[in-house]
Amino acid sequence: MRLRVRPLSIQAGGSNIAILGENTASRLGVHSSDRLQIVHKNKCAVAIVNVSANFPQDCLGVYEEVSKKLDVRSDDEVEAHYAESPESLHYVQEKIRNERLRKSEINLIIKDVVERHLSDIELAAFLTALQIHGVSMDENEALSRAMADTGSNLVLGRKPILDKHSIGGIPGDKTTILLVPIVAAAGFTIPKTSSRAVTSPAGTADRVETLCPVSLSVEEMREVVNKTNGCMVWGGALELAPADDIFIRVEYPLAIDPMLLPSIMSKKKAIGATHVVLDIPTGRGAKIKTNDEANDLAADFIELGRRLGIRVECGVTFGEQPLGHTIGPALEAREALSTIMGKGPADLREKATSLAGILLEMVGLKDGKHKAEELLKSGKAEQKLREIMEAQGGNPQVKVADIGVGDKKETVTTDMDGEVLWLNNEDLVRIAKEAGAPKEKGAGVMLRAKLGDHVKKGDALFDVYAERATRLEATLKLAADLHPIGLSRRPEDRMLISRIPARAVHRKASTLES
Amino acid sequence: MRLRVRPLSIQAGGSNIAILGENTASRLGVHSSDRLQIVHKNKCAVAIVNVSANFPQDCLGVYEEVSKKLDVRSDDEVEAHYAESPESLHYVQEKIRNERLRKSEINLIIKDVVERHLSDIELAAFLTALQIHGVSMDENEALSRAMADTGSNLVLGRKPILDKHSIGGIPGDKTTILLVPIVAAAGFTIPKTSSRAVTSPAGTADRVETLCPVSLSVEEMREVVNKTNGCMVWGGALELAPADDIFIRVEYPLAIDPMLLPSIMSKKKAIGATHVVLDIPTGRGAKIKTNDEANDLAADFIELGRRLGIRVECGVTFGEQPLGHTIGPALEAREALSTIMGKGPADLREKATSLAGILLEMVGLKDGKHKAEELLKSGKAEQKLREIMEAQGGNPQVKVADIGVGDKKETVTTDMDGEVLWLNNEDLVRIAKEAGAPKEKGAGVMLRAKLGDHVKKGDALFDVYAERATRLEATLKLAADLHPIGLSRRPEDRMLISRIPARAVHRKASTLES
Repeated sequence: MRLRVRPLSIQAGGSNIAILGENTASRLGVHSSDRLQIVHKNKCAVAIVNVSANFPQDCLGVYEEVSKKLDVRSDDEVEAHYAESPESLHYVQEKIRNERLRKSEINLIIKDVVERHLSDIELAAFLTALQIHGVSMDENEALSRAMADTGSNLVLGRKPILDKHSIGGIPGDKTTILLVPIVAAAGFTIPKTSSRAVTSPAGTADRVETLCPVSLSVEEMREVVNKTNGCMVWGGALELAPADDIFIRVEYPLAIDPMLLPSIMSKKKAIGATHVVLDIPTGRGAKIKTNDEANDLAADFIELGRRLGIRVECGVTFGEQPLGHTIGPALEAREALSTIMGKGPADLREKATSLAGILLEMVGLKDGKHKAEELLKSGKAEQKLREIMEAQGGNPQVKVADIGVGDKKETVTTDMDGEVLWLNNEDLVRIAKEAGAPKEKGAGVMLRAKLGDHVKKGDALFDVYAERATRLEATLKLAADLHPIGLSRRPEDRMLISRIPARAVHRKASTLES
Repeated sequence: MRLRVRPLSIQAGGSNIAILGENTASRLGVHSSDRLQIVHKNKCAVAIVNVSANFPQDCLGVYEEVSKKLDVRSDDEVEAHYAESPESLHYVQEKIRNERLRKSEINLIIKDVVERHLSDIELAAFLTALQIHGVSMDENEALSRAMADTGSNLVLGRKPILDKHSIGGIPGDKTTILLVPIVAAAGFTIPKTSSRAVTSPAGTADRVETLCPVSLSVEEMREVVNKTNGCMVWGGALELAPADDIFIRVEYPLAIDPMLLPSIMSKKKAIGATHVVLDIPTGRGAKIKTNDEANDLAADFIELGRRLGIRVECGVTFGEQPLGHTIGPALEAREALSTIMGKGPADLREKATSLAGILLEMVGLKDGKHKAEELLKSGKAEQKLREIMEAQGGNPQVKVADIGVGDKKETVTTDMDGEVLWLNNEDLVRIAKEAGAPKEKGAGVMLRAKLGDHVKKGDALFDVYAERATRLEATLKLAADLHPIGLSRRPEDRMLISRIPARAVHRKASTLES
């Protein structure tokens, strides 16, 4: 059937979508979610149909993705007819029925995901089914390979290639900013990519961005690594495993994460990693709650790595409280820089050298942690960090005080004496975000008391930093409501963890509550 | 934040959607799938955010559903800020984790479905989780009630109110056109609503529409029932249980049907039914394959009915071949009219009087089937059908030959002698649709041989009717490929049911294959 094109000057954001009026759809014999084959001159595209009750007759609305593909303008005529569903949709349906998917079937799904041939409905069903039924190791392997193969790859012509990844979950984790320079200073290649915050107050890319640019192309990234052995760049623009970003957009509202393993390992494969240390923060306030869970997950990562030709070791790390004292991009960058320069909190230094040590031992060095500590102490790690910053286009001379933090600041104090019994990660995240992090890079929280510290009435618990007075005010109000830090003279003084009223609002999946 | 409105003159088709450019979304601190509270003068709406890379800064794109709600025009200024996710989304997430949902939680979900507060991603995850985990009887009850309560209700002030429903699955099922007049002629109230075809070559509403109008309002429906005891109207415009249509749109591409029970029973509740006979066609070519499955499903429907105050009985019916000889709206209407006038195939007459008989016995009559047969034989059922047609706005004098069928016709014959061993429902559906059904009402298939019939080489197997020569040609080609009717001299001559080549395309969920 001939249809007149009406380009919508917006992106569908996910799939190739075309709009039809009810009458036109009915005459074409298509329903919402059916596919339409659209031909314009010598170009051709398959789009998913959305039926819109009052869209003008004999017109075809197309989002930018489709109009670009077909190279059409307003009022161009196209030929459109019903097209079969993609074969990959059958495998999505099979996964709902709990059938194990074969490699070739997964390849087709990932290809269609990347080419935007599956709708949000179909993607959500696929990911929900994976979440519920679980993903077998064969499937994880096939997913990792397919996701890496459908994106860019970094080819360095070097070996070994080291990498580090955290499965995430605790605030203030600026380990990467120390670990990458340590490993690179030891003479090994570590082309590190990181993400920005999605729900947290700072991702590693946000932190590093207060030190130097992070939006590099694959080509620029290769240059930095060839010059310095390492880099710390934002992964978002590199199109390594682009299917992952599409999946994350769908997983986010559902709060599910069925692709945890292939999501991480596909990116490691895409940069050619041969040795990876995986950080698994564990504790009541982290993503992984118990050591048993951490051990199971570690075994899966190691096995998946083995299948992909990547040696993986895992570090299960203490996740009961934020790492270091700071939460928020600029505050964290300050703390990382200060630590690599010889000051800074012991837990951050200890975690960075432990994980760097594992990596160094994986490639044959003896006493890796000691070696990492030496590189830190000697100033070689700091020098390497400054080299990397310079290679990425930053100022290598930057001092801690040069990194701007919010000039609106207030201290939250305690009204009792006692020992810090717990810090609630989730509440501290909310407070840092209320202050403006990650958008306002100078906003965040500086902890003044951590687990085991003794405080007296009137002592500081934490400082709030903000760039705007209104934000500061709102944050202090929230902090007063949340009580993110629990104190007691003795543990036995506070046996009641939480009280659940008769009309509880809703059950939470998380963690320790005050 | 103040934003300028850019109305998109299309409907989102499902949810309240607003578009933001990347930069504006980032400054608002929202991601795709987050909610935005939008205020314009004294109107307010919550919309789900889609981030579109290059949408103009400080602008808010709104689909028609949202612009109507806010009463905004191009360039109006609105105030927009981040809004929490609806509470119902937490319960969707709980269902993914296989928690049983409480009545109050289901009420919130259905309310948000009907108010378009849940996105396609969230709806798809909910329905996929229900499909995989199953739906408990408590949940079915809560869903049925909530779905009926959020739509229109038919209040007739009569009792009892009878109804019939088929779970669907075999082609050519025109039972309703006989059953409704029989029951109404017996003096009982039967306000029947039906659907149009979605994937089949004819729904009951499509069939009846060749006899009289079916798009009535609830008010008009009530008038017809008050006048004649019965009606046969299209349910689509009545907004009985509108959540169901929203679910069906999402279930359709996924080929799942987790809401089978509440989808049917909510509509029965909305019309005030007190007695319902449920038809469960069973056989290799039907939705339900075995008697065990049929019995389990029947027990569930009966129990759900009991909880909703509706007496349900089920008829498990023979579903190995199409009912009667015709497939396609007009051909089926002809056959139904001819049968109610005393001719027509025995299987149709037998099924209609059996199911009508069950209903009549449920409300206290003895020997219901016999009573139903008498109403058919005496012409009272025919007279009632013509009354209903007239009350709905049709011509009550219509003769069988007045119902127009396609004038392009060709007969498919057999090239061997033998007995009909099987008819493939799915293939016959494809052939009828290829001929043009249901859009072209005169198109379809007339079977000339059914199970157990003996045919000789050159005998007719079926006729194809079409309204257009090109359709007829394509259909004959498809019919030759499919071989929808299997013949054999003796069953033992054809022991091989199917041969699966080394490179099978994909596994099918269905039925008997040739």
